[in-house]
Amino acid sequence: MCAQLLSTQPYKGTRDFYPDEMRLRNWFFGKIRQTLETSAFEEYDGPMLESLELYAAKSGEEIANKQTYNFIDRGNRSLAIRPEMTPTVARMVAGRMNELSFPLRWFSIPNMYRYEATQRGRLREFWQLNVDIFGCDTFEADLEIIVSAIRILKSFGADPSMFTVRINNRRFFNDVIAAIAGTDAEESRKVSKVIDRKNKVTRESYENDLTSLGLSKEQICRIDELYHMNVTEATAICPESVGAQELRLLFEALEKIGLSEYCVFDFGIIRGLDYYTGTVFEVFDNAPENNRAMFGGGRYDNLVGLFVKNASVTGVGYGMGDVTLENFLVTHGLIPDSFGSEVKVLVTKFDDVPYEAYLSLVDRLRNAGIVSSVYLGSKKFGKQIEYAVKGQYTHVLIMGGSELEAGVVKLKDLETREEATVPTDKLEAFFAH
Amino acid sequence: MCAQLLSTQPYKGTRDFYPDEMRLRNWFFGKIRQTLETSAFEEYDGPMLESLELYAAKSGEEIANKQTYNFIDRGNRSLAIRPEMTPTVARMVAGRMNELSFPLRWFSIPNMYRYEATQRGRLREFWQLNVDIFGCDTFEADLEIIVSAIRILKSFGADPSMFTVRINNRRFFNDVIAAIAGTDAEESRKVSKVIDRKNKVTRESYENDLTSLGLSKEQICRIDELYHMNVTEATAICPESVGAQELRLLFEALEKIGLSEYCVFDFGIIRGLDYYTGTVFEVFDNAPENNRAMFGGGRYDNLVGLFVKNASVTGVGYGMGDVTLENFLVTHGLIPDSFGSEVKVLVTKFDDVPYEAYLSLVDRLRNAGIVSSVYLGSKKFGKQIEYAVKGQYTHVLIMGGSELEAGVVKLKDLETREEATVPTDKLEAFFAH
Repeated sequence: MCAQLLSTQPYKGTRDFYPDEMRLRNWFFGKIRQTLETSAFEEYDGPMLESLELYAAKSGEEIANKQTYNFIDRGNRSLAIRPEMTPTVARMVAGRMNELSFPLRWFSIPNMYRYEATQRGRLREFWQLNVDIFGCDTFEADLEIIVSAIRILKSFGADPSMFTVRINNRRFFNDVIAAIAGTDAEESRKVSKVIDRKNKVTRESYENDLTSLGLSKEQICRIDELYHMNVTEATAICPESVGAQELRLLFEALEKIGLSEYCVFDFGIIRGLDYYTGTVFEVFDNAPENNRAMFGGGRYDNLVGLFVKNASVTGVGYGMGDVTLENFLVTHGLIPDSFGSEVKVLVTKFDDVPYEAYLSLVDRLRNAGIVSSVYLGSKKFGKQIEYAVKGQYTHVLIMGGSELEAGVVKLKDLETREEATVPTDKLEAFFAH
Repeated sequence: MCAQLLSTQPYKGTRDFYPDEMRLRNWFFGKIRQTLETSAFEEYDGPMLESLELYAAKSGEEIANKQTYNFIDRGNRSLAIRPEMTPTVARMVAGRMNELSFPLRWFSIPNMYRYEATQRGRLREFWQLNVDIFGCDTFEADLEIIVSAIRILKSFGADPSMFTVRINNRRFFNDVIAAIAGTDAEESRKVSKVIDRKNKVTRESYENDLTSLGLSKEQICRIDELYHMNVTEATAICPESVGAQELRLLFEALEKIGLSEYCVFDFGIIRGLDYYTGTVFEVFDNAPENNRAMFGGGRYDNLVGLFVKNASVTGVGYGMGDVTLENFLVTHGLIPDSFGSEVKVLVTKFDDVPYEAYLSLVDRLRNAGIVSSVYLGSKKFGKQIEYAVKGQYTHVLIMGGSELEAGVVKLKDLETREEATVPTDKLEAFFAH
């Protein structure tokens, strides 16, 4: 056998997590878990493979086929590697509709695959935090979801100068368009579609489209003004709108709990016309070089409609990608230099000491919760120290024949270079303070 | 649109992890992580998708094709969902051969997919703990790997009555066969193949096969005796064998560090002829109803041979499946009734109190690290209590208009049914003791 050597590169758009990268990933997922669990959110997970029809039913067959990794198994089932979590969680909620205690406060940090061109911030394999509240359709749930996003970013040390939550409401959006344009629901919808595409077309084409739907120059101008209004001004246009009321309640509560400095009303936040039904929001990175929506979410209806007849569960939530979050943390200098344990001890080895003497020391250290190992191998002391430094050990423990006889060990702090001689039976105590 | 309703079942051989199941999974992966990190092992991870040739090169094309979920991407690459972790970690080690500091002490808890008939303990999607030491080829690394497996099971409360580590050595196996059969390496290999299949054929067929390789009745009998020998007796047959020396050193060390009650020599442990090269072991569940190997591992050579020319990295390690471990923990009653947080507070809601008063209470609780949420919805108090009980909250906080006025809250312990009235500004302190 003299086969060609295989490549050591991971598959395009995927990443290897060596211990250094894994420490970072565990650190930031750990902080997210802790923040959400403290807020009484519960974690769930589902399989990596799902029936392709789950995605086809939500997004259409063409998109599902094109954007997912999909294939047919030997039982002739069309499967896809999950490209998003919502269909899975919808299936799960529908599967236990009668046992679950609503409202659900759920989160998950699944990895997923999307078949797409790779570019900065877009990989084929990524992790995505999903946070949702299911079964509560009032503004309190919307608020709690936004609060959870802010708490997560704050837990990393982010402050209001670094990010902004831009908030709108789809019901308000529809109502205010109708109020300004004086149109019925059907016509308003056409107007909304034009407004949704505002940033993708020229100003001229935008105005022409609105004019052809019967809007006057003055009406177009009033719509323009919405983009510069605060929530009080904007909601005053159609005060009776349920969406306007939701927006006001939400911003009042944000003000009262001291989070208004993180949040602004932004009429430009729409997030696709067909999915969201109430509050919508996007969290923007404020850094000039990175200024864009990092993630977003909102309220949607009928989560379980594809699975259960005549049932309705509403939801509100968001999805945050790991790559985007990491970019944000890097941009703002929020990643610490080291995530290692505070103490990590390498027990160095000498030939004149029985090996089990080292084993018993390391056993005691580990039983006391101190990260430690005996050096494996037969290299000289200097090489052992080198191994300790490279491996981010904070201390080396030195016990040669004379120390063993004297019943002591030496502990060298690799950062300060200080060395302490400690009676062997006081070893755990040395690290306790 | 009146499409047929979709099934709520997960794909065959996969599992949904609702919060109850997820708590269990997080609990036992958490304990494993903690145990291994305290022993200075470092976590890594790789992509779910790998080039199919990675598995074909290791196991042959037919097996790789048959046992993996594989498909061709739009760039005409053959991909597989990882069915095991070794090829990935081999690729990763090979990819940074010159930067990594050996010996590596690595672990990972990846999910993987195997295309196989589903049965008890065998699912298509499962998680597998992989623990390995790379780049140390002496018995100390074998010992450390076995110690790590024992420490993990002990961390769950398992004792020597519940499991046994059965240990053999492939070099010793080869040498003792050669010593008894008086054969050369080539002939010994044929004898080994017969012995490896011993439990899969009738006694008659086994004896016939050995006889046809030239072994006498007496030689067959001496091989039989090996299965009943302890390590001292067995290694005395070929004391000069390097494998025999490794076995003796390993068992001596296990004795000296107080782990010999967990370990026995077992000549029956072989684990496939083509892969392992030194120490091999399997961890058995001692429960009569479950008596079988839960997991195993051993020493293997040339981890990076498929990727790097003229380089060799040895490894020793094991893989432990989540389903097997869970069966073991259930069988021995080692899973606690609850893994929830110690305190979880539901702030109940009354109409005569401004909502932000509740929000500020929950904000304070969370800032003090106390798991808590405000009840979301508009149900009556009794229903709120019901929600708290179902959601495994330990306390409800009650603050109606009169409490608000008096500057107090009531805290009801849902287990003891005790109720305490606490000044609002002493709220965090109430939970601190």
